[in-house]
Parts: sequence; structure tokens; C-alpha cells
Amino acid sequence: MEKQQQLYEGKAKRIYQTSEPGVLWVTYKDDATAFNGEKKDTLEGKARLNNEISTLIFTHLNEKGLQSHFIRRLSDTEQLVRQVEIVPLEVVVRNVVAGSMAKRLGIEEGTPLVEPIVEFYYKDDALGDPLITEDHVYLLEAATAEEVESLKIQAKKVNELLVELFAGIGVRLVDFKLEFGRTNEGKLLLADEISPDTCRLWDIKTNQKLDKDLFRRNLGNLQDGYQEILTRLGGQ
Amino acid sequence: MEKQQQLYEGKAKRIYQTSEPGVLWVTYKDDATAFNGEKKDTLEGKARLNNEISTLIFTHLNEKGLQSHFIRRLSDTEQLVRQVEIVPLEVVVRNVVAGSMAKRLGIEEGTPLVEPIVEFYYKDDALGDPLITEDHVYLLEAATAEEVESLKIQAKKVNELLVELFAGIGVRLVDFKLEFGRTNEGKLLLADEISPDTCRLWDIKTNQKLDKDLFRRNLGNLQDGYQEILTRLGGQ
Ligand SMILES: Nc1ncnc2c1ncn2[C@@H]1O[C@H](COP(=O)(O)OP(=O)(O)O)[C@@H](O)[C@H]1O
Ligand SMILES: Nc1ncnc2c1ncn2[C@@H]1O[C@H](COP(=O)(O)OP(=O)(O)O)[C@@H](O)[C@H]1O
Ligand SMILES: [Mg+2]
Ligand SMILES: [Mg+2]
Repeated sequence: MEKQQQLYEGKAKRIYQTSEPGVLWVTYKDDATAFNGEKKDTLEGKARLNNEISTLIFTHLNEKGLQSHFIRRLSDTEQLVRQVEIVPLEVVVRNVVAGSMAKRLGIEEGTPLVEPIVEFYYKDDALGDPLITEDHVYLLEAATAEEVESLKIQAKKVNELLVELFAGIGVRLVDFKLEFGRTNEGKLLLADEISPDTCRLWDIKTNQKLDKDLFRRNLGNLQDGYQEILTRLGGQ
Repeated sequence: MEKQQQLYEGKAKRIYQTSEPGVLWVTYKDDATAFNGEKKDTLEGKARLNNEISTLIFTHLNEKGLQSHFIRRLSDTEQLVRQVEIVPLEVVVRNVVAGSMAKRLGIEEGTPLVEPIVEFYYKDDALGDPLITEDHVYLLEAATAEEVESLKIQAKKVNELLVELFAGIGVRLVDFKLEFGRTNEGKLLLADEISPDTCRLWDIKTNQKLDKDLFRRNLGNLQDGYQEILTRLGGQ
């Protein structure tokens, strides 16, 4: 397998074509961004931490029968994934009120939800990734009604599996963001990454934040939090 | 019927108790506000125009079999309405993309929608009346699932009737905001006002704006636009 031309550089990863059609080479970056790119920094070691954690999580989901784009880890900071046509939606699942939901609804951060809630945000940096309703999803032709159902079912399944995984290591899965893509066969496949960049992870006992809020809110060393997650998940 | 103590003063109306239980006295104000109260002015004659237009619209809806809180016009600027417990939702119906929807989704203002879209905004000035999803409605206990269905059905029915009414006077009903309230019997009743303050109304031929965007966007004399709507509706 060979890394070929770069297809895309995002805020957190670079995506390259490979010698094998339909297979992409992902390299994680040490860059941290927040507030739609307004706050930026380079945090040494973040690329490795997210690559390792994403690898462990996608592997766990796969073992539990939930498919994703993940093929295999290549190195400290690289992995191979199946190419998909990304659906321009950020699918957010929440178990506890936090972040933008706390602000939007005026509910205190930390309030547990009786049932997990799935939200759709339109993946468009220029628009600031706005919250949208299902009618907006259809208007934007971001996904069909059938796809929206599949996104919700898959997102809730991922949530069940990850709530359990994190509970087992003393971590509360507060919320997280997923991206999905269409395969050649038109199926929706879980893609992108699942890492402390895309989840809110609080220590169950102390409520200490072990995720990107460390960076967003200047709460402490990001790498220490991410390393704690990686170590508890059994990685190094 | 006597006007008694003031119950509430909002941005556009004052609400008084009356000698009859369950009946409220509404006086419209000449105040205009926009952007959650950031832009303010007093526009002489606006109270009368909105009272007259709201009266004509509620009367029309009633004739078509759609009930509301409206009881009767009292004077140029006053009307009697049935007291309800207001549901803290702004129910917005859109036929054409405009305003916040155009901005949120990056769609050009003026783009017609194939189907009308109903949106819910949480009626909370401190939060800036945010767009919310149905799950948020339930989380906030703003309405039950059964009530949400009733709100959507009633809102779409109002839309059908008003699209037709306005088309008959050469006006395109772009979008509008409704409020509903619970009666003693627990039924949801259309309440508040329907006026150029709460609708976007464009001349069908010229696209000239005849609504509060005249004030919001400094596009011309608000009273001229509202008077045009009142006159075309058969009022004075
Ligand atoms: N399997 C995949 N196939 C195609 N594109 C993908 C896949 N997984 C992730 N991507 C896309 O790769 C891009 C790079 O990721 P990232 O750096 O996180 O970008 P962003 O700045 O948009 O968050 C994103 O647009 C993401 O949607
Ligand atoms: N039938 C009704 N019973 C009780 N309250 C009502 C009724 N109709 C409207 N209201 C409420 O009267 C208040 C005054 O109206 P308005 O000046 O438009 O207020 P706002 O500043 O909230 O827009 C609003 O809170 C509105 O919801
Ligand atoms: Mg990303
Ligand atoms: Mg009002």
C-alpha cells in the first residue's frame, strides 16, 4: 500500500489517495482548533493520541458488530480507511447537557438526559456548522428520510456501545459527534474519527474533563487528558 | 366589559385583565423592536394598523372554521381575546426562504420551498429565541408530542388559509410566526397576533416588502407598507 496524492487537508487530518482504489490514507495532525477555527494551536503528541484512541474505538465497535470506514492502523499517527462520500451532517449524540446545548436551551451543563438526544448540524464551516431540523436536512438534500432514520439508529447504537465502553474505564460519555459517508453500494458507513476531539469525556468520580474542552476552555493540558483516556482504554 | 389591572407588558402589546374571567383586553403599542430588542423605535399609527390587520385576519380564519383567541375588536388599537396559557414556542411557517433561515442554511432569500416548513423557536428573550428541534421541545417540557402534532397541523392549516387570502390581494406570504396557548379544557388555541410584525409579506409583482423588514432593514416607511396591507385587506 502506497500513500499517493493528498485529497483533502482538514483542521485535524490529511487524507491521501492510495494505490488501492477506494482506500484512503489518513494522517492525524497535531493542530488543535476550536470555535470554528478562531482558536488555534499546535499540541505535540495530539496526532498520535487521536490516531491511537480512534483506532481502539473503531476496533471495539467492529468487534461489537458495528461497521465503520476503519481498515487498520498504519503507524503512530496514520490509519487506512475505506473511502466514502461524506454526508454533510455532524450527527451529535448527547447523554448529558453540555456545550452549545446548555447555552442554546439555558439548561445547566451536567444535567443528565433521560433519553439520549440525536441532533443534526449542517457541516459547513462558512455557516458555522448550524443546528438544523430534519426538514432542513431534506431541503439541503444532505440526506434522504431513509438515510436520516439510518443515521439515528446507527448513532444511537454507537452511543450504547461507547457509553458502556467508557463506563468500564470510569468515564462518562457526555456527548459526541459522528460523521457518516455513503459507500459505492449506497450504504451509510460510520466514518471520520472518534476521539477526545469529537467527544466530551468526564471522569465519572471527579467530573474532570478529559477532552477538547481542556483546550477550548483553557482547563489544563490537553495531552494529559487524552493520554489518560488512551491509557485507560488499554493503549500506551 | 371593563379594563382592569395590567397582567403583562410585552414589546408590542399590553395585556389587561377584564371584569370577565378568562377574557383579556389587548392594547397594541406603537413600539417597534427588532433583533431581540436591540433596535427600537416608536412608529405612530403602528398600534392601529396591527390591531386592525390582526382583527381582519383572525375574523377571516374564524369564518373559515379555524378558531383563535380573538373575541372582538374594541377600538382602533384594542381587542378582546380569550385568556390562554401561552406555549413558550414561536411556531414559524415558511413558504419561501428568507431571514434567519436564509442565513442559517446559506440559501438565497426568495427561494421558494416545495413544501411549507414548520419550525419551533423557544420563546425566551434571554436566550434569543433559539431554533430548537422537537426533542428539545420535549426536554424543555414546552409541549407534549401530541401537542406538537396539533401545533403543526394548525400551523399548516393557518398557512393554507392565509396564503390564499394574501394571494387574493396580490401579496406573497413568505413566512410568519404563530403563538398558541392552552385553554382551560387543555386544547391548543391560536393566540397572540397575526400582523405585518409577525409575517413576511411581499408584493407578488414587485417583491416590495410590506412587513417589519421595512423597519429591521431600513427599507422605507413601515406605516406605508402596513397601511397598504390593511387597505388591500379591505380595511381603512
Ligand atoms: N472515510 C472517509 N472518506 C472520505 N472522507 C473522509 C472519510 N473520513 C473522514 N473524511 C473527511 O476527511 C476530512 C478531514 O478531516 P478533518 O481534518 O477532521 O476535517 P474538518 O476540518 O472538516 O473537521 C473531513 O472533511 C472528513 O469529513
Ligand atoms: N390569549 C392570550 N392569553 C395570554 N397571553 C397572551 C395571549 N395572546 C398573547 N399573549 C401574550 O401576550 C404577551 C404580550 O405580547 P407582545 O407584546 O407581543 O410580547 P413579546 O414582547 O413577548 O413579543 C406575549 O407574551 C404573548 O405571548
Ligand atoms: Mg473534523
Ligand atoms: Mg410578540
